[in-house]
Amino acid sequence: MNSMSTDAGLLDQQDSLSSLRSKFSLPEGMIYLDGNSLGPLPKAVKSRVDQVMTEQWGNSLITSWNKHQWINLPQRTGDRIGALIGAAPGQTLCCDSISINLFKVLAVALQLRPGTVVLSTEDNFPTDLYMVQGLRDLFSARSIELKLVAESELTASINNDVAAVLVTHVNFRTGALLDIEQLTAKAHACHAAMIVDLAHSAGALPVALDAWQVDFAVGCTYKYLNAGPGAPAFLYVAKRHLGKAAQPLYGWMGHADAFAFSPSYQPAQDISQYLTGTPSILAMSAVDAALDVFAQTNMQAIRDKSMQLGMVFQSEIARRGLDQYLTLMSPSAPQARGSQISYAHPHAYAICQALIADGVIGDFRAPDYLRLGFTPLYTSFADVFMAVDRLERIMQDEVYLEDKFQRRQKVT
Amino acid sequence: MNSMSTDAGLLDQQDSLSSLRSKFSLPEGMIYLDGNSLGPLPKAVKSRVDQVMTEQWGNSLITSWNKHQWINLPQRTGDRIGALIGAAPGQTLCCDSISINLFKVLAVALQLRPGTVVLSTEDNFPTDLYMVQGLRDLFSARSIELKLVAESELTASINNDVAAVLVTHVNFRTGALLDIEQLTAKAHACHAAMIVDLAHSAGALPVALDAWQVDFAVGCTYKYLNAGPGAPAFLYVAKRHLGKAAQPLYGWMGHADAFAFSPSYQPAQDISQYLTGTPSILAMSAVDAALDVFAQTNMQAIRDKSMQLGMVFQSEIARRGLDQYLTLMSPSAPQARGSQISYAHPHAYAICQALIADGVIGDFRAPDYLRLGFTPLYTSFADVFMAVDRLERIMQDEVYLEDKFQRRQKVT
Repeated sequence: MNSMSTDAGLLDQQDSLSSLRSKFSLPEGMIYLDGNSLGPLPKAVKSRVDQVMTEQWGNSLITSWNKHQWINLPQRTGDRIGALIGAAPGQTLCCDSISINLFKVLAVALQLRPGTVVLSTEDNFPTDLYMVQGLRDLFSARSIELKLVAESELTASINNDVAAVLVTHVNFRTGALLDIEQLTAKAHACHAAMIVDLAHSAGALPVALDAWQVDFAVGCTYKYLNAGPGAPAFLYVAKRHLGKAAQPLYGWMGHADAFAFSPSYQPAQDISQYLTGTPSILAMSAVDAALDVFAQTNMQAIRDKSMQLGMVFQSEIARRGLDQYLTLMSPSAPQARGSQISYAHPHAYAICQALIADGVIGDFRAPDYLRLGFTPLYTSFADVFMAVDRLERIMQDEVYLEDKFQRRQKVT
Repeated sequence: MNSMSTDAGLLDQQDSLSSLRSKFSLPEGMIYLDGNSLGPLPKAVKSRVDQVMTEQWGNSLITSWNKHQWINLPQRTGDRIGALIGAAPGQTLCCDSISINLFKVLAVALQLRPGTVVLSTEDNFPTDLYMVQGLRDLFSARSIELKLVAESELTASINNDVAAVLVTHVNFRTGALLDIEQLTAKAHACHAAMIVDLAHSAGALPVALDAWQVDFAVGCTYKYLNAGPGAPAFLYVAKRHLGKAAQPLYGWMGHADAFAFSPSYQPAQDISQYLTGTPSILAMSAVDAALDVFAQTNMQAIRDKSMQLGMVFQSEIARRGLDQYLTLMSPSAPQARGSQISYAHPHAYAICQALIADGVIGDFRAPDYLRLGFTPLYTSFADVFMAVDRLERIMQDEVYLEDKFQRRQKVT
């Protein structure tokens, strides 16, 4: 215990991000390893939402659309998110949910590319697959097939039948990180579009959409961007595709001249075409304010600390022999995974509940994953050591230590 | 002036809703006649959103999905809206934007009904027409035509080719109120579905969706329901249609077993199927809190006062001879219109700006409409008299009084 505490203290002393923890309202004594599911409340969000309610909506009412520039909040907030994912201005929009945004970009990809297959992975986040199924059932231009393969077979499965490759950058269960640049090159060689879901990467690690030549991306703001439960999502459309095909959720805010109130839809030629209805200004102001903290650091510094936090956790688990009982389901090299680590255990659900009762918040994912997120903006090395201490104590309960259960095969 | 003030005082004394004004944060001295565009801030919304941020998100973080029942907020809030529009529980959902919700119900109507025409009105709110155009461009089952007619020709235009009749209950420009019950009967006689947009009626006047046998409805919460700029919208699906066809924006929250994370979409058989992605809990909590004020009155009392406010305005305009210059574009009988009155004038835009500068907030709608909303929850009779006083003073500017401009034809 003594050497560990020294280690934690030293690591925290050397941590250039440690001061950012004060930007968040975290409950006293809680160790929060679930920022990959819902980020905590940034103090800047609380004060901004209060200000928008009282000073903008309350005092200026309808005139706020111009006076407080509500009207272009989706574009302004979009560009700020764009700066974190390697997107030059004018290509990113904050709006709607990740599912709705995926529907929009998928429909455009199918208009622009000749193939008949949408290729994705078996364990992609289900809503992404569902949106393909929904669009497929409606789509009139040609018949579309959703083809699912294992992550390891993805590259080999891209061929000229493929219209779009749809992947999540970081696997939501295992944390495995895909090589988007390489997949995009293969997709483009086969005339397919590359669509990337950044739910578990935006705000967690460096992303370079423009440089990787990704065609379309979507992502959420309530995980690593800390914008609040169900906060508005974002989408990215590479500049070269803007004005080439219209997303089909024709709403008045995506019209070339919204305030003309013409009965015929004329798509805007810029990223605004991807807007549909009026966005929630309260919710989107929360996104905008949540991004402020990123101005005080950079994605590489966040990534470095995230890998370090994960390595410390992993080596403490090994040092204490807990890896005999908890099967690592994430890639073991920190470079090969996102900002989370998952372990399988037949009693993962019960272990997760015991951890939560002991003030360490992680989460459970079916079938038997204990998933822990390491979020550098507000997690200290001391937190990580304490989390392992408590996990070790829980695991000493003989139910969890018996070696009779069937060990899971590691996937990587 | 003296007799008018007496009138206003007397009317305000007799007003059973006058105490509800204290439930809103209205800027001192402002006369707000634009609640038909954006309702003002209810005090209950401010405190609820603060509580959701600090106590729920801030303190309970991810556990709030169960602990604070975030998970069924769309259904709970939906049912509370349902109570205001004549919908029994289990048929109304708070989610997404009005445009997105219209896309969902339109797609279901086209699956359930054999016709090839979506019939609507030439001056329906444009986003409603755009969503039909977007769906038409995607729809694979058969080719769909959007047919637009004048409001006066609507009933006569419903025939067996029509799959769905799509109307806005209250016209956004003129305020003209359609007879939904009669239109629904005609639609059903022709095997067509009735879809009603309640943007300008929910919270403004009694609506009886179940009794009128409407099939589908959508509406917004930021006008007469006062839930804030761009607040989440709602949708209604008559119980008899639930489980019969799936809306195509297949998101994980509309899955029959969302947390099984199965790769195949299985539509929920109840109203939950109309959910798509994760909703904004901050924004939806604002909707929920904004509904509280309606528990203290009823829609008939609101309607009665709204008609009275409009009549007072109208008769004061006439008494002062201003109706020589301002052409009433709304039906003149209060029973035949919603909660707004529109006047045409060649200088409507300038008059509107002058009114705003003088503390009376109305709005302008193309081409030449001055639109004034009379919202009973926070508008007093004194407000109405003061608004006419100020409008009269502005109209005395000779530019507005010259009789050389082309008078508009009245539409009813």
